[in-house]
Amino acid sequence: MKSEKKFVYLFSEGSKEMADILGGKGAGLAEMTRIGLNVPPGFTISTETCRAFLKNGKMPEGVMDQVESALRTVEKSTGKKFGDPANPLLVSVRSGAPVSMPGMMDTVLNVGLNNETLRGLARKTGNGRFATDAYRRLIQMFGTIVLGISAEQFNDAMNDLKRERRKKQDTELDENDLLDLVFRYNEIYSRMGFEFPENPRDQMEMSIEAVFKSWNSERAKVYRRENDIDEQMGTAVSIVAMVFGNMGNDSATGVAFTRNPNTGEKILFAEYLVNAQGEDVVAGIRTPKHISDMKTELPKAYKSLTDSVDKLEKHYRDMQDIEFTIESGTFYLLQTRSGKRTARAAIRMAREMADEGLIDREEAVMRITPKILDSLMHPQVKRTGDEVLLGKGLAASPGAASGQLVFSSERAIELSKEKKPLILVRPETTADDVRGMVVSKAFLTQKGGMTSHAAVVARAMGKPAVVGAELIQVNSKEKKLACGDTILSEGDEITVDGTSGEFYLGKTQMEDPGISPDTDVILGWADAIRKIGVRANANTPEEAVLARKNGARGIGLARTERMFLGNDRLPIMRAMIMSRDEAERRINLDRLLPMQVSDFVEFFRTMEGFPVIIRLLDPPLHEFLPDKEEVMNEMFRLRTGSKSGKEREKLADLERIFETIKNLEEFNPMLGFRGCRLGISYPEIYEMQVRAIIRAASKVIDERKTIYPEIMIPLVGHVNELKVLRQRLEDVAREEAGKKPVEYKFGTMIEIPRACLTADKIALYADFFSFGTNDLTQMTFGYSRDDAEGKFLARYIEDGILESDPFSTVDVDGVGELMKIAVSRGKKTRPDIEIGICGEHGGDPDTVAFCHRIGLDYVSASPYRIPIARLAGARAQIEEKRKKI
Amino acid sequence: MKSEKKFVYLFSEGSKEMADILGGKGAGLAEMTRIGLNVPPGFTISTETCRAFLKNGKMPEGVMDQVESALRTVEKSTGKKFGDPANPLLVSVRSGAPVSMPGMMDTVLNVGLNNETLRGLARKTGNGRFATDAYRRLIQMFGTIVLGISAEQFNDAMNDLKRERRKKQDTELDENDLLDLVFRYNEIYSRMGFEFPENPRDQMEMSIEAVFKSWNSERAKVYRRENDIDEQMGTAVSIVAMVFGNMGNDSATGVAFTRNPNTGEKILFAEYLVNAQGEDVVAGIRTPKHISDMKTELPKAYKSLTDSVDKLEKHYRDMQDIEFTIESGTFYLLQTRSGKRTARAAIRMAREMADEGLIDREEAVMRITPKILDSLMHPQVKRTGDEVLLGKGLAASPGAASGQLVFSSERAIELSKEKKPLILVRPETTADDVRGMVVSKAFLTQKGGMTSHAAVVARAMGKPAVVGAELIQVNSKEKKLACGDTILSEGDEITVDGTSGEFYLGKTQMEDPGISPDTDVILGWADAIRKIGVRANANTPEEAVLARKNGARGIGLARTERMFLGNDRLPIMRAMIMSRDEAERRINLDRLLPMQVSDFVEFFRTMEGFPVIIRLLDPPLHEFLPDKEEVMNEMFRLRTGSKSGKEREKLADLERIFETIKNLEEFNPMLGFRGCRLGISYPEIYEMQVRAIIRAASKVIDERKTIYPEIMIPLVGHVNELKVLRQRLEDVAREEAGKKPVEYKFGTMIEIPRACLTADKIALYADFFSFGTNDLTQMTFGYSRDDAEGKFLARYIEDGILESDPFSTVDVDGVGELMKIAVSRGKKTRPDIEIGICGEHGGDPDTVAFCHRIGLDYVSASPYRIPIARLAGARAQIEEKRKKI
Repeated sequence: MKSEKKFVYLFSEGSKEMADILGGKGAGLAEMTRIGLNVPPGFTISTETCRAFLKNGKMPEGVMDQVESALRTVEKSTGKKFGDPANPLLVSVRSGAPVSMPGMMDTVLNVGLNNETLRGLARKTGNGRFATDAYRRLIQMFGTIVLGISAEQFNDAMNDLKRERRKKQDTELDENDLLDLVFRYNEIYSRMGFEFPENPRDQMEMSIEAVFKSWNSERAKVYRRENDIDEQMGTAVSIVAMVFGNMGNDSATGVAFTRNPNTGEKILFAEYLVNAQGEDVVAGIRTPKHISDMKTELPKAYKSLTDSVDKLEKHYRDMQDIEFTIESGTFYLLQTRSGKRTARAAIRMAREMADEGLIDREEAVMRITPKILDSLMHPQVKRTGDEVLLGKGLAASPGAASGQLVFSSERAIELSKEKKPLILVRPETTADDVRGMVVSKAFLTQKGGMTSHAAVVARAMGKPAVVGAELIQVNSKEKKLACGDTILSEGDEITVDGTSGEFYLGKTQMEDPGISPDTDVILGWADAIRKIGVRANANTPEEAVLARKNGARGIGLARTERMFLGNDRLPIMRAMIMSRDEAERRINLDRLLPMQVSDFVEFFRTMEGFPVIIRLLDPPLHEFLPDKEEVMNEMFRLRTGSKSGKEREKLADLERIFETIKNLEEFNPMLGFRGCRLGISYPEIYEMQVRAIIRAASKVIDERKTIYPEIMIPLVGHVNELKVLRQRLEDVAREEAGKKPVEYKFGTMIEIPRACLTADKIALYADFFSFGTNDLTQMTFGYSRDDAEGKFLARYIEDGILESDPFSTVDVDGVGELMKIAVSRGKKTRPDIEIGICGEHGGDPDTVAFCHRIGLDYVSASPYRIPIARLAGARAQIEEKRKKI
Repeated sequence: MKSEKKFVYLFSEGSKEMADILGGKGAGLAEMTRIGLNVPPGFTISTETCRAFLKNGKMPEGVMDQVESALRTVEKSTGKKFGDPANPLLVSVRSGAPVSMPGMMDTVLNVGLNNETLRGLARKTGNGRFATDAYRRLIQMFGTIVLGISAEQFNDAMNDLKRERRKKQDTELDENDLLDLVFRYNEIYSRMGFEFPENPRDQMEMSIEAVFKSWNSERAKVYRRENDIDEQMGTAVSIVAMVFGNMGNDSATGVAFTRNPNTGEKILFAEYLVNAQGEDVVAGIRTPKHISDMKTELPKAYKSLTDSVDKLEKHYRDMQDIEFTIESGTFYLLQTRSGKRTARAAIRMAREMADEGLIDREEAVMRITPKILDSLMHPQVKRTGDEVLLGKGLAASPGAASGQLVFSSERAIELSKEKKPLILVRPETTADDVRGMVVSKAFLTQKGGMTSHAAVVARAMGKPAVVGAELIQVNSKEKKLACGDTILSEGDEITVDGTSGEFYLGKTQMEDPGISPDTDVILGWADAIRKIGVRANANTPEEAVLARKNGARGIGLARTERMFLGNDRLPIMRAMIMSRDEAERRINLDRLLPMQVSDFVEFFRTMEGFPVIIRLLDPPLHEFLPDKEEVMNEMFRLRTGSKSGKEREKLADLERIFETIKNLEEFNPMLGFRGCRLGISYPEIYEMQVRAIIRAASKVIDERKTIYPEIMIPLVGHVNELKVLRQRLEDVAREEAGKKPVEYKFGTMIEIPRACLTADKIALYADFFSFGTNDLTQMTFGYSRDDAEGKFLARYIEDGILESDPFSTVDVDGVGELMKIAVSRGKKTRPDIEIGICGEHGGDPDTVAFCHRIGLDYVSASPYRIPIARLAGARAQIEEKRKKI
């Protein structure tokens, strides 16, 4: 032998750790063999072989020699011989990638049958019909999978035959019928210019190659792209001695889950079919029996099943999804893998397995991915069984919503004025559709994948979306949606479930998101593990209450400006902005002061015992004024025609507002006159706010509550900004506190690249830093988020220019680099500085992990994202620990 | 003695290198003594003494002991004794800081006179009037400077006396009159609760302390702030034996420049007064004589003067400004310092001194500060002697302009519609005035310093400004400007000279800026010294011609978008933007193609032999469309009332334009859909431009010219943007070039923080980097330049939050830090990468020096700033070399 490379592994040579080499299926078969479970003998050809085959377009040298030698071992243990007319060994050729890609690649069964071995098999089993059926199945599978003949032709031949013989079911066909079918199948072959290879070794080699090639099938590629699976991995091929569940009434085939995959309950969840093949279970031709029947029907095999199930779950320490076959009373395991489960089941299982001692708490936490938890945090369709399913696409953005169909942005904007809940349906979306998406509850598109425009925008907006529902027909012009035979029009109601990818006719019942007791327990474990703190971004006292309920320990960001938008406050805020001079401004600020005090009192009370970071006014003042275009339109309207005295007055008001708007107008308000730039230019605004904070704190301290106020300055880019403000505002705080001093921290947002680069200087005047990663991302990338999302960002992600949306997950190479610089420089001059993050990224699991890695003290997330952040923080800690080991 | 610290230095103990310790004056006196010139004996009390005195509020221990001992040495060499009634030594107590602050601090003369020594002096000199006059001067100076009595009181006493004695001039007063004056002065002292100290040692100590204190006088502080002088330095005090130029007709006093300070000509430039004191020259009571008269009048002293002048210029290797006194025929030098000179004179002197061998060429280059050169690059008032000077303020922004007075922004905007040149005059400016400043030619304000709003904005706009002209009165309400007795109104013409700080009535004659032969020679030397290259930013072929004339070696930035604004092109550009699909867009681009080709041909021809960097389209498309508000107004106008068919058509057009504007509208266009983001989304635009570049290059190569085209992509933030575009555009270039390949470089702007941070990755696809420091500054600071300059930036600079305007000089701590990161990372993966800067900063001397230090290959500046950049590059090189030595 030229090559000494090992391409082929007997099941007895592998283990579950070798999934990279043997694929998931191969590793499972090997592991089961290793721990003494009854698995038909066989071997696996490595993924490396597949990679080499695909690269060079031919099988690497030595592979088939190794296959031959492994085959000999299988022959020995079965006592059968591959291609032996007297006692033929049949095998299945099964695909199996390192990562599960269910149904995406191909398998060929009954390899080894030909005209000669057919007779041997018939004789050996005493069942001519069975043998012939196996043969025609091989010919059919081989034709479609290996040679690419359309399945339709074989189905047509089968249907023709049944019609001719006046038989309804396949099972009614007898041995002769099936022989006739074999003949007809062979005719199809020759019509297509093929011949069925009689030589079993040719069958096998061609099947192996076909499985390898199926790695690059269109559907497999799409699946990998959608599921973010490495394109380079390749698949392994397992060759398994055939066992038959259709050898009579002491034979059967079935599938089992070691626990209920829907609820998570610890109960054997399985079904089986007597005298049937695995395909029959999948095809759904006969209704499988409940596993409890097996206890009486096949008691010995039932015992083997329950024993195996117990052993497998204990061994794998996870719920297993098992395929088994009983051949003439003998129980065989054909596959085991971690079973798929609903989010709710995942959480229950993790909790119960930890309680049972099967896994430890860290493992339980690691079992719950943020995605699982996330899917529970959005409204869900409450399945009652009465839902009318219209179709299914990709689950692009989780959550569910019902509403009326609308087919264009223009129309959506019009209808939204009637406050109707809308579902925007488009063939696919482009930048023009963003306006419509803003006013809709959920989206459904016919085309596009998980990174299509619609998907990216939906996730950014946090709205449910199903995309790439290829089977629907969207006709925007005629405002029609065809789902099979159902034709829907504008205004018809549907429900979109972005968690499952399904959509339904009408309004389904909904389940509100909430933290179940199991979730609560696991999050408690996560809290105990986690090093990084979790605070909430809360703009109103109500949000603070919710945040605390969801497990936040403090407020990382209270945006004071949101408090000025109430109906009672906005007019005063506007009067303040339109003040002619400082004196007038101070009068209006004095009217806002008691309102701010009462807000802050609520915050402090709610977050008793935990820190509350209050950020002083940040946005540009024009945000508090009405829309310029609307004011212009109204002015034009009032100017035309004769005017009443009241109208004249209103016009004068509008003109004054317009003048103010014009004065405040900016080319790039995001980079304009806002944040501490305002605070420095109009000292009286921040002075009022600091006065309100101290007054509120003082009041709550009088209630004998322990509070930790932190005052945060936004948009600092130069140390002198912070220095000047700190000096000025500490004077105000001291004056306001009077004799009974109020303890507080004074710090700054870090949201400008320059602040990161000069963090050593800024830290001299800051007790804490809080990364504002939204603005930091905007400035580091030079993206205006409001513009980019509609205009080019989705395209960038779709085209792979960006790996992910930098406004969802912190861009580690750019923004993350600046954060690292800021942390290291900030700690250089103030080692004990408290550093957190309060951008929306704080609720993103990858970002939480990154923040943990660079040593932040806490993340602050929106109240709804708190559970995710708590979980992600713990997972990051566990991952770090595992890496160290 | 407790302290061994040396506070006091005899002139014979010092040298010119000791200016930090002895002040400029003390070091000059010491140096002249050292090289054998005739200087009255004396000593200097160090600046350190001043610092200690000001810090502790009292004289450090030991100082007066050292003064006493130095005084003894002076007594010895003069043969006189301090306080000796028979032969009294008199001294002057003179201030002198390490950096010249002319007229800012105080000096007391004739210290040592009292009622007793007065008699001795009269007897010794045989001149009672002279001695009495010296005494009354001492009492007067001591009163005002040391005790702070107002000068007015002494002047009143003098005037009263003259009136009573019916005498017009001080000189007509005889000895008795002067004795009476001494009596009256003493009465002023007692009225104010003081007594003139009879003890000469008290006089001296109090005078020294007064000089120290004068360091902190209001006017000295203001002067230091305006001239950026270190507040901590302190002043030295020199005690000099008095010599008198008013001892008779063989005595005199005068000043001399070793060369003509106005023209630079090598000729003794001096004047003198016989029988006079130094103050008399300054006071301008008598007209000084031309120095040529001295040759015959005082031949021996004249010889001493010319000998001294020669010796001093050779010794100091620079033009000296000298004060001298001739006492009874003996020539004394009292001061030498580098003479102030006009910009034109500075350049001539530097060139001629190098030609004479007095200095080398490096030194000549170092003598020309960028500020000197800059002042010659702006239009100047051509002085004819006929100018009517209205007043003087701070020279805040160089250049000169004439125009009509206007007193408010509103009015300026109105008048600007009549295309009148305007001069905006304000008490001081605020953000509201920026709109008016935009439409005015120059500014004049009554208040504010060199960093006031008006000054900062003027420099940013490159317009002349005089600020802080405290003596004018601006009445904005009545639109009046009072300059002394002259009252001007709106529409009156004035000329503002921001180079000198002067302003004139009417329109003066102007000199156009230009490079004189002397300048040309020195810039040639600079080119030979300089390591860093100098290219130009040129947007049109005309600018390229000017740039080449000014010494640019290549184009660092040709902005292609400026070429689309011509009357013949803008309509096509608009049609391109409003195209319904790619096909229509391509048709319009095809029409632009030949126009771009012809532009590029001109660039390549003009810059034959040098590189030309052409940047592909950068700005957001809406910049090519009309103003939204104007379109709205016009639409409203057309909609009201009945319409003609033509009007209806126009309305439809406008509606379509409005729709496009709305679609392209962005919240923050600077961070929006522009640069390579456009290029990626509409590939056909960049494809047309690259096609045009290659076609033009090919054509010019056919003319047998050597050219170096470089294609530059704007706004790259992620390597994948550049990767995708490079692949796509290189295909286009290859296709266009056909059989005869065109050599070119392909590179990118570095103007986004993320690009700096990931420069290692980006360099893999870039042959060159060019820093776009304007955008980089905007994003690093989070400043929108258009908004910041009017809204808060001026205030930030005025308040000292920022040291300087980051849009003029690169901010080394933030933006510079990112540049350093980009250089080092870029060179890591591509060591031979060409790196330059093409932001406006490229013409700023400090930035050029910074770019030199971090190892850039070239700077690219506007054509007008090329000479400055050439000079600054050479100076940076010399400074580096000197630092190494």
